[in-house]
Amino acid sequence: MVHLNGTTKDRSQLVPFSSRLKEGRALAQDVWSIFNAANLPADCINLGQGYMNFAPPDWIKDAANEALSTVSGSHYSHPKGRPRLRQALKKYYDPMFGRDLDIEKEILVTSGANEGQYSVFVAFLEEGDEVIMFEPFFDQYLPSVTFNGGKPVYIPLHPDTSRGKITSNDWTIDFEELRRAITSRTKMIIVNTPHNPVGKVFTRDELEKIAALAEEFNLLVMSDEVYDTLTFDDKEHVRFANLPGMWDRTVTVGSAGKMFNATGYRVGWLIAPASIIQPTLAATTRIVFCSNSPLQEAAAAGLEQVHERKFFEKQRKEYDERRRILIDCFDELGLTYTRPEGTYFILLDVSNINWPEDYPFPESVKGRGRDFLACWYIALEFGVSSIPVSEFYCEEHVNIGERYARFAFCKDVDTLKQAAERLKGLKKAISKTTS
Amino acid sequence: MVHLNGTTKDRSQLVPFSSRLKEGRALAQDVWSIFNAANLPADCINLGQGYMNFAPPDWIKDAANEALSTVSGSHYSHPKGRPRLRQALKKYYDPMFGRDLDIEKEILVTSGANEGQYSVFVAFLEEGDEVIMFEPFFDQYLPSVTFNGGKPVYIPLHPDTSRGKITSNDWTIDFEELRRAITSRTKMIIVNTPHNPVGKVFTRDELEKIAALAEEFNLLVMSDEVYDTLTFDDKEHVRFANLPGMWDRTVTVGSAGKMFNATGYRVGWLIAPASIIQPTLAATTRIVFCSNSPLQEAAAAGLEQVHERKFFEKQRKEYDERRRILIDCFDELGLTYTRPEGTYFILLDVSNINWPEDYPFPESVKGRGRDFLACWYIALEFGVSSIPVSEFYCEEHVNIGERYARFAFCKDVDTLKQAAERLKGLKKAISKTTS
Repeated sequence: MVHLNGTTKDRSQLVPFSSRLKEGRALAQDVWSIFNAANLPADCINLGQGYMNFAPPDWIKDAANEALSTVSGSHYSHPKGRPRLRQALKKYYDPMFGRDLDIEKEILVTSGANEGQYSVFVAFLEEGDEVIMFEPFFDQYLPSVTFNGGKPVYIPLHPDTSRGKITSNDWTIDFEELRRAITSRTKMIIVNTPHNPVGKVFTRDELEKIAALAEEFNLLVMSDEVYDTLTFDDKEHVRFANLPGMWDRTVTVGSAGKMFNATGYRVGWLIAPASIIQPTLAATTRIVFCSNSPLQEAAAAGLEQVHERKFFEKQRKEYDERRRILIDCFDELGLTYTRPEGTYFILLDVSNINWPEDYPFPESVKGRGRDFLACWYIALEFGVSSIPVSEFYCEEHVNIGERYARFAFCKDVDTLKQAAERLKGLKKAISKTTS
Repeated sequence: MVHLNGTTKDRSQLVPFSSRLKEGRALAQDVWSIFNAANLPADCINLGQGYMNFAPPDWIKDAANEALSTVSGSHYSHPKGRPRLRQALKKYYDPMFGRDLDIEKEILVTSGANEGQYSVFVAFLEEGDEVIMFEPFFDQYLPSVTFNGGKPVYIPLHPDTSRGKITSNDWTIDFEELRRAITSRTKMIIVNTPHNPVGKVFTRDELEKIAALAEEFNLLVMSDEVYDTLTFDDKEHVRFANLPGMWDRTVTVGSAGKMFNATGYRVGWLIAPASIIQPTLAATTRIVFCSNSPLQEAAAAGLEQVHERKFFEKQRKEYDERRRILIDCFDELGLTYTRPEGTYFILLDVSNINWPEDYPFPESVKGRGRDFLACWYIALEFGVSSIPVSEFYCEEHVNIGERYARFAFCKDVDTLKQAAERLKGLKKAISKTTS
């Protein structure tokens, strides 16, 4: 028992924060705050964070507004999610999963996909349980796992760097490496397809190999498929839960924000068997009690109308056009990049981008991967911000990630064209050894 | 390593959910699902759960609608909360706390007050840390503490049952009992004023005694003040953080849902020194990333206009009228109840309510406190639902709670009058030994 004796002390010594914050980079200055608009020139075009510079469609906003004028739409929803939204999810997903989904037991609405994932970790992880994630990984996974006693185990996707033009399909898993990483403490594996930030749409063959390991070693699979409506080049999105035997051990993650260009709505969902949904419902109910009501109604209206409006078909074409603008720009520059087959991210190989030796970098990017310097230099000198990819790797594997900068193309065509125009200035920064 | 051998097994055996769900009643059938509208007669008037049967004011909904039509209002907010809302919170709270609050370091917007509280537990609790809570306690505290390794320690408020008419002020703390409960593992104490469900507005003297113990034993104080705008009978709401020396160790919890009759908006906030906000921000950023954007704008608009519109003054009068309807009803019946000085709950003493010995109670309420039977009987026979208060006590102290049923008066006047009319039928169920 500590007595204060009236002296002023550092509060953090008095009641120290939990040791769980000391793991999983939870208190480190993250890449988002370093490459935040506030730290960059005011006229810098932001292709860093993955949010749109356009609003969701009117017919979705209208549904939110309608809900706002009702009593029920202004008050608590059921912790499982609003019945209308769960019904709309069922109708939308039933044919995709080839199931008659039970809206009481197999569908759970969460406060964004992020909170849904967090709730799964709360519901299933025991102290010391190992969770396998593929690098580069969505950065929220790491602390969400460690906060709940889990231990991340990293398996890198290996890019084929021997060739110039590659697609996201050329980032591959070494399955022997994956098998070796599995121990008696492995509880879960996180699959993310289409993959942020690589843009990889995992092939059926790859997923089947993962499935075989999940079966052999009795693993729970979190399949983060929030970009499932954003695939290109007729690439097939394979749902992990649909692989033989996988339904029983898979929780699929979805997001209204990604589907409808509404990242600020904070409406996501989980689809899984009752044995996974029930404990996760117990977790999310305690964490947030329920998700906001009016924007659940908006998401429901969205799902109800997508087929009739051919919304995703049109949206896919729009994103394809946006992707094309950056691809053409990088091609014209002769730069190496990964052509994404899904998501709205493209990885540029920055290993040939050079800057003056005495370039005045701030402390925040020094001592990090080379990509931190490249992203900073490109943002400051050429006015387009991006995100260094080594942030999405464990320390041991930074060398793989530091080759790349992630550019988001979830921006309107004019903005992307302007960004491409600016990036053409990179010509002078490319070293002569460019392949 | 478990091999499945192709047999169908119960999924929960294959990858069992976390043991943390086995504590803190996380998987038990809770009172909310037992006394859910779906289990009660369709025409039952719901005075159980604490949500309003009216919508928030138009000028607040209008602000949400306006935000929905903007790009920024449709996308991610800063994890700390939208600048406009943090600014509005500062302007509103600065005079109340007598401080120049720093919107970057001392104010944190959360996805409802509930998620804010959860984040504090994530940020501060170590395995085995003890958290003191006063009974009856807001039921979410318990699993939120145990999920994060904490151990709840219960201190009952003692009602004065020697008299007929009492106020919430007659529920008191035995400070010797409180002192005895503090150990070297005590990390935090939760204060809830105005108190749900007692309606108690803690006196300055009571809070000062708690503060002295917090100082002596170096405790973090979570002061849940979400009902601070709902006090009656000119009772003074004392902010715990304003007591001498307490700012440094107190996190104050607030809620737009409670303030503006918008429980489905899921916008809450924490106010505390940087040493508490910083770790909590690290937690909430991983749990939800950020809170929904349009309804943060609505909450900001609400706070910006409350003074000019005298909103809380009018609202207080409206709730006072609502309270009066139930008080008059109970007085007329000669029933014992606790007159609440804050919140929108009133505790009815149901120890004199009787029912036929062979009354057909469902299994869900059998073997629980006597209040479960009373609430069920009143709902089924008289058409008004309420919540049994023993749910908000640990097992050891159920005998204190089972005397009471909680009725919520956050309903419109007509509904409350109709409920009162129905409750008058209780006359025949009151035993003759009524005091």
